[in-house]
Amino acid sequence: MPAKTLLDETAQGVFTIAATPFLPDGALDIESLDSMVDFYEARGATGLTILGIMGEAGKLSAKESGIVIDRVTARASVPVVVGVSAPGLAGIKAMADTAMERGAAGVMVAPPATLRTDDQIIGYFQMVAEVLGKTPWVLQDFPLVTEVQMTPRVIRTIMDSCPTCVMLKHEDWPGLEKISTLRRQEAEGARRISILCGNGGMFLLEEMLRGADGAMTGFAYPEMMAEVVRLTKAEDEGRARDVFDAYLPLMRYESQPGLGLAIRKHILAKRGAIAHATVRRPGTVLSAATLEEIETLIARQEARLAALG
Amino acid sequence: MPAKTLLDETAQGVFTIAATPFLPDGALDIESLDSMVDFYEARGATGLTILGIMGEAGKLSAKESGIVIDRVTARASVPVVVGVSAPGLAGIKAMADTAMERGAAGVMVAPPATLRTDDQIIGYFQMVAEVLGKTPWVLQDFPLVTEVQMTPRVIRTIMDSCPTCVMLKHEDWPGLEKISTLRRQEAEGARRISILCGNGGMFLLEEMLRGADGAMTGFAYPEMMAEVVRLTKAEDEGRARDVFDAYLPLMRYESQPGLGLAIRKHILAKRGAIAHATVRRPGTVLSAATLEEIETLIARQEARLAALG
Amino acid sequence: MPAKTLLDETAQGVFTIAATPFLPDGALDIESLDSMVDFYEARGATGLTILGIMGEAGKLSAKESGIVIDRVTARASVPVVVGVSAPGLAGIKAMADTAMERGAAGVMVAPPATLRTDDQIIGYFQMVAEVLGKTPWVLQDFPLVTEVQMTPRVIRTIMDSCPTCVMLKHEDWPGLEKISTLRRQEAEGARRISILCGNGGMFLLEEMLRGADGAMTGFAYPEMMAEVVRLTKAEDEGRARDVFDAYLPLMRYESQPGLGLAIRKHILAKRGAIAHATVRRPGTVLSAATLEEIETLIARQEARLAALG
Amino acid sequence: MPAKTLLDETAQGVFTIAATPFLPDGALDIESLDSMVDFYEARGATGLTILGIMGEAGKLSAKESGIVIDRVTARASVPVVVGVSAPGLAGIKAMADTAMERGAAGVMVAPPATLRTDDQIIGYFQMVAEVLGKTPWVLQDFPLVTEVQMTPRVIRTIMDSCPTCVMLKHEDWPGLEKISTLRRQEAEGARRISILCGNGGMFLLEEMLRGADGAMTGFAYPEMMAEVVRLTKAEDEGRARDVFDAYLPLMRYESQPGLGLAIRKHILAKRGAIAHATVRRPGTVLSAATLEEIETLIARQEARLAALG
Repeated sequence: MPAKTLLDETAQGVFTIAATPFLPDGALDIESLDSMVDFYEARGATGLTILGIMGEAGKLSAKESGIVIDRVTARASVPVVVGVSAPGLAGIKAMADTAMERGAAGVMVAPPATLRTDDQIIGYFQMVAEVLGKTPWVLQDFPLVTEVQMTPRVIRTIMDSCPTCVMLKHEDWPGLEKISTLRRQEAEGARRISILCGNGGMFLLEEMLRGADGAMTGFAYPEMMAEVVRLTKAEDEGRARDVFDAYLPLMRYESQPGLGLAIRKHILAKRGAIAHATVRRPGTVLSAATLEEIETLIARQEARLAALG
Repeated sequence: MPAKTLLDETAQGVFTIAATPFLPDGALDIESLDSMVDFYEARGATGLTILGIMGEAGKLSAKESGIVIDRVTARASVPVVVGVSAPGLAGIKAMADTAMERGAAGVMVAPPATLRTDDQIIGYFQMVAEVLGKTPWVLQDFPLVTEVQMTPRVIRTIMDSCPTCVMLKHEDWPGLEKISTLRRQEAEGARRISILCGNGGMFLLEEMLRGADGAMTGFAYPEMMAEVVRLTKAEDEGRARDVFDAYLPLMRYESQPGLGLAIRKHILAKRGAIAHATVRRPGTVLSAATLEEIETLIARQEARLAALG
Repeated sequence: MPAKTLLDETAQGVFTIAATPFLPDGALDIESLDSMVDFYEARGATGLTILGIMGEAGKLSAKESGIVIDRVTARASVPVVVGVSAPGLAGIKAMADTAMERGAAGVMVAPPATLRTDDQIIGYFQMVAEVLGKTPWVLQDFPLVTEVQMTPRVIRTIMDSCPTCVMLKHEDWPGLEKISTLRRQEAEGARRISILCGNGGMFLLEEMLRGADGAMTGFAYPEMMAEVVRLTKAEDEGRARDVFDAYLPLMRYESQPGLGLAIRKHILAKRGAIAHATVRRPGTVLSAATLEEIETLIARQEARLAALG
Repeated sequence: MPAKTLLDETAQGVFTIAATPFLPDGALDIESLDSMVDFYEARGATGLTILGIMGEAGKLSAKESGIVIDRVTARASVPVVVGVSAPGLAGIKAMADTAMERGAAGVMVAPPATLRTDDQIIGYFQMVAEVLGKTPWVLQDFPLVTEVQMTPRVIRTIMDSCPTCVMLKHEDWPGLEKISTLRRQEAEGARRISILCGNGGMFLLEEMLRGADGAMTGFAYPEMMAEVVRLTKAEDEGRARDVFDAYLPLMRYESQPGLGLAIRKHILAKRGAIAHATVRRPGTVLSAATLEEIETLIARQEARLAALG
């Protein structure tokens, strides 16, 4: 099934980074893929990103990845982006071809950790664009995990030489100046691209005010992100900040590296998005103290949202 | 001048990680050292930590480091801990001897990035303890920067074999379970040590509830940390969370790696603690957009604190 | 086709790390898989290791990996070890099951770069052993690439708790003391394991004298490794050193990180083992100067071997 | 005492990276500084580099560093380069001023590990050049240790914008193409700089043939380096290779990371260059097996050199 629509530079809103649900024994939980898609869409997702780092993509066999792509693209009514990062171009191409044939709207590629110099980074993504052919793709900029630093000039060079690169997944930290610089380059004539931001949503407020088009991250409350995006676009900054601040204590708690995924899945399970909070091994099991801390944070969050009206 | 008191396992409260103030031309700002000490103490600091990573210690010459130690220990009425991490034991010893002669209460040592295995880490700190002699010292656990991972068992082995190690500066992320495990080991008979927490204060609330004794970090509002420590010890958790949440949006903004120090110094200068926000080169200069974002966050913080009463 | 024999602790000699041959357009060169197997066996290989780091495993699609396993196990008359390192246990298990069904003698697993502490490393490999079931496996210790440091104690703990781990691929650098320590532990009662060494053969002479059982590396002249192993076991150390030294200038040249694979494939193609020297993208193309340097080194090596008689 | 001559772009030959000798109790061995200088000069050193990574600079106190500079510049009749890498520009400047006042011919600076992008690297060294003023300096390119990758374009940009940068210490691995590219840039009009090579001498033969001006490394037999430099310049490549190959087995053994310094000091002590092989803690103590391996390699090396005539 080819995609209804292909991803392009006008993408905006909230592309939720989707979790991959598992049964308690670690097997893929196929039913939960459906309920999770429904959950995200009902809470304002304008797109979905699957098989990313947070989606435990590395822990899936090739066959399982195919099942996830099929099921999510079949269920979703919004565009689906598929993470296809792999050590070699052959693997990227094979995965991307599979994804696009099955209905994805585009793919996402992160740089391998071996890249260091500007030329290496640019050269790598130009090869990626070549093997991807006509497939639209997202450049993932996530230095904390990839250890690859891309300057605005490097990103711009990639965008200029690769017309099929339509979006930046922005996850540099600190990264606010990078958004401003990229938008300034566009004001001076460069092709406009979509910028969706990660970092668990922790800087979404400022990212939007700097010129981002939305969020691409997996915070367990997509409705917060949808609302902050909507309010900042409507220039209701005060209300946007109120909403953002109400969710911040929990967002912060969910941002703990490694642990964060388990917390996120716990909340998604609690909210009914998926049936089980299982993280595939090797992974983390939450302690009783952690579960209690989450409950307290959720309770306070709800009280504060209620007070906001 | 020897220290009025030496650091020991009963240390608690807020040991502020002090900035090092510079004049606009990059020279050491000696007058501001005094005003900064006064500022921190007036806002609840129960100790000061100087010449740490955040204190730009690496950018000072040996002579300048000596001046900072002298001035701060002379001015402070609370215990002063001096960061003495260095590539070699000779450098650590030289720096520690200088610090203690001039009135420091103890020193702090972080592991060099080359350490990997448990045995390497334990062996390194046992050598450190040996060269430090009777000087009380703080073990700095900051994997995000040092790239050295210490398990609770490793920390405990160091504590058991080095009686002069009286405090853990806890800055693992995620690190809440580590606090719980260390306290459990103590409940089972291990020597009790002081645990003061870093991470810019972003998890201070939960850290206190897990058993920490306080904070050792440089957030530009030490009064928040003092209040959260006081309230959690008084078991007024609700109020502690209200205070914590009020400061969280700015704390989050200050937590941006690299950029954070410039933000912190800007706020300290704005609050009158130091005369200039200068960061020594190589360092960051804040953009107009960043300065504006800080102003907004401060204004909202003040409004929220006012509403709290 | 199940393996004729399973890998066990008695393995010795030269397990050549096999290259993966490609056609000039980058497609898998299936015919060359046969000629390469014949080449290695004719020059003294007592085993083959496929789909390792040097085998460009990360650049193959899952389907291509299956083809390589099938073809090599069908052709080889010596045991075949298959590299199955993957980010998740599910991927490791799927790959290992495929390999063993198709006739492999065992599999090899390297630790993911995220492991740091002793407990993390031990825990990881115990999970690996559990999912591998009865499949014999090789523990790959290659800190320069994996960034994971395993002490002899950690390796011994893994060996003790995982009876299916039958071999250490030793590639620490420096690693001679590690071999001595592991053999000493065995002299004191620990289970004896096979130790085959990597590092491009650059330390094979000393490794054998410290107690290794042979080599597992991809130097383009397997006959050197077979001869050094034979001579050191026959206690003809002088002759072993003469042979080793004759090959050392080229071995050194082939040891250049990144570039080394292209050099190795160039020599393998020149020697008729494979039809083309192609390295899959992203990879290196050798300059004219490099090709000339290789020719000079080969000519001198041949002259020196001739002089040796 | 100002330097007799300042370092400039015509530097060539062998700048030995000098060890720092210690007494058995770890104190600086000042007498050995003299004998070491004499030893290096008598064996063909055309310059000396002190307080580099291999010189255990990080393990010296500031006072000790000053003593080493004084003693070596007083004794040496060849130019002395002083390593002044430090986390901050103030430290670099203080150290460089001290070195130049005391008679150094120039200083050497390596990039801090935090630099990643081309612009960060260029910007950093432009600041370094600015604070160094008129002092001639050497750019140290050692990615295996610094983790900073500099392309030929980046190096060229630094050379073009910083006329006081007169030499590249080349220690990339693989790095032969880099030398060729830099020399090609010069043939096309760029300013010619001196290129001296590191890597323990392991690629000196090819480095000279690619256009290097000599070696800057610490192999315990400087006479090998002097001879290979002389012979390649005299275009006696065959003899140069014979000499190089004779030393290669030991050079390889000395190249083991971490361990190498202890091996080097052991040989220097054995050869009478320094009184004791002591490495300052934390450091390595050589095992009996290692000492025996060194003896065997030296004996074979001597036999081979004798056979060469």
